[in-house]
Amino acid sequence: MAQHTDRRYEEDLVRLRQSILEMGGLVERQIHDAITALARFDRNLAESTIERDHEVNRYDVDIDEQSLHMLALHQPAARDLRFITTSLKITTDLERIGDMAVNISERAIELAERPSALQVDLPRMADTVRRMLRECLDAFVREDANLALAVCREDDEIDVLHREMFSYLLGRMTADPQMVVPATAQLFVSKYLERIADHATNIAEMVIFMVKGKSIRHLSVPAKI
Amino acid sequence: MAQHTDRRYEEDLVRLRQSILEMGGLVERQIHDAITALARFDRNLAESTIERDHEVNRYDVDIDEQSLHMLALHQPAARDLRFITTSLKITTDLERIGDMAVNISERAIELAERPSALQVDLPRMADTVRRMLRECLDAFVREDANLALAVCREDDEIDVLHREMFSYLLGRMTADPQMVVPATAQLFVSKYLERIADHATNIAEMVIFMVKGKSIRHLSVPAKI
Repeated sequence: MAQHTDRRYEEDLVRLRQSILEMGGLVERQIHDAITALARFDRNLAESTIERDHEVNRYDVDIDEQSLHMLALHQPAARDLRFITTSLKITTDLERIGDMAVNISERAIELAERPSALQVDLPRMADTVRRMLRECLDAFVREDANLALAVCREDDEIDVLHREMFSYLLGRMTADPQMVVPATAQLFVSKYLERIADHATNIAEMVIFMVKGKSIRHLSVPAKI
Repeated sequence: MAQHTDRRYEEDLVRLRQSILEMGGLVERQIHDAITALARFDRNLAESTIERDHEVNRYDVDIDEQSLHMLALHQPAARDLRFITTSLKITTDLERIGDMAVNISERAIELAERPSALQVDLPRMADTVRRMLRECLDAFVREDANLALAVCREDDEIDVLHREMFSYLLGRMTADPQMVVPATAQLFVSKYLERIADHATNIAEMVIFMVKGKSIRHLSVPAKI
């Protein structure tokens, strides 16, 4: 009986890990599609990205239920307890990242109405952000604190890119009122990408806490842990 | 011995509830101070608000640790399990709200450099947002699903206010390039407040899930539950 419970427990853990990765993959695709829609003035792609958000939300509810169920049924201790409670927190971040992809898609729809020649390199920024997301979730399922730490460091890159775009776009708007609408939309998209990077960094910090059992959240990131 | 454990458990629950309320009170004050600094071009107040963010972060880490400790030690079931796991998720939202107060303070510092006559009524919007935050946390500690539902409805008001400010500020920028810098800053602050309202709504939805044991997250809000 105990063995049966153990096997069931292991299966539940595998399923939870799998669900988090699937949710992460979906959210990553959402970011990709939203940015592609923006760069190509593709209203249809933006709309289908917005519609697909309900799938992200379904994962959020489902993973929360899996986690609660495991806490109630198996009463895990120590490392597993931390793994499951971290899952609960990670879904919140992933769901918010999904919301950001929706926000980007909304801006894409606005810009598709009046395509403008003004385009900053948001796809490149989005590539870095998507890589951070992939890495922090890999770090989570592999319980790899070093990979998580690498994600925290990449966040600085994104902050620099965001600040550069911000000052460039502000300059363009000030010089030419025609640029106000497209520049503001891209300003917001750059901000959304920066927020997504923050969420990935939060996840990475939680992974480090989970693995090391101590919090580096809200400390400046140390050179090594 | 069992009785001793029970009493200890009850004390831990009271302490957890108290910590969440304290963290909420602190975050509410942060929003208030950030918006006041913005409206009064008060650089000092903005800077002290940014400095105080580490107190918010300390609560975040502390409440996570309390929650994990309770899950490990008392292995609570059913309603208490949901209460504790909800605390874990709520701190993430409160911490993000704290970050938004920091972002608003940063904009306040920028605007204090060159005070502008252009001012939209962000303090009024902030009052509504702070009330939503207070109410969703009250709903949490009192396990009051109806109060939580009221918060979800208030979110629509904020969305309308944000859209109004957005279109007004965009118009001002387009008409007068001098307005680009102050209008962009206020555009972002309006967006931050709208995000805070979203976080409060997320908390409210989690409270309804906690109390009713079913998720209304990601459904359109029903008239009654």
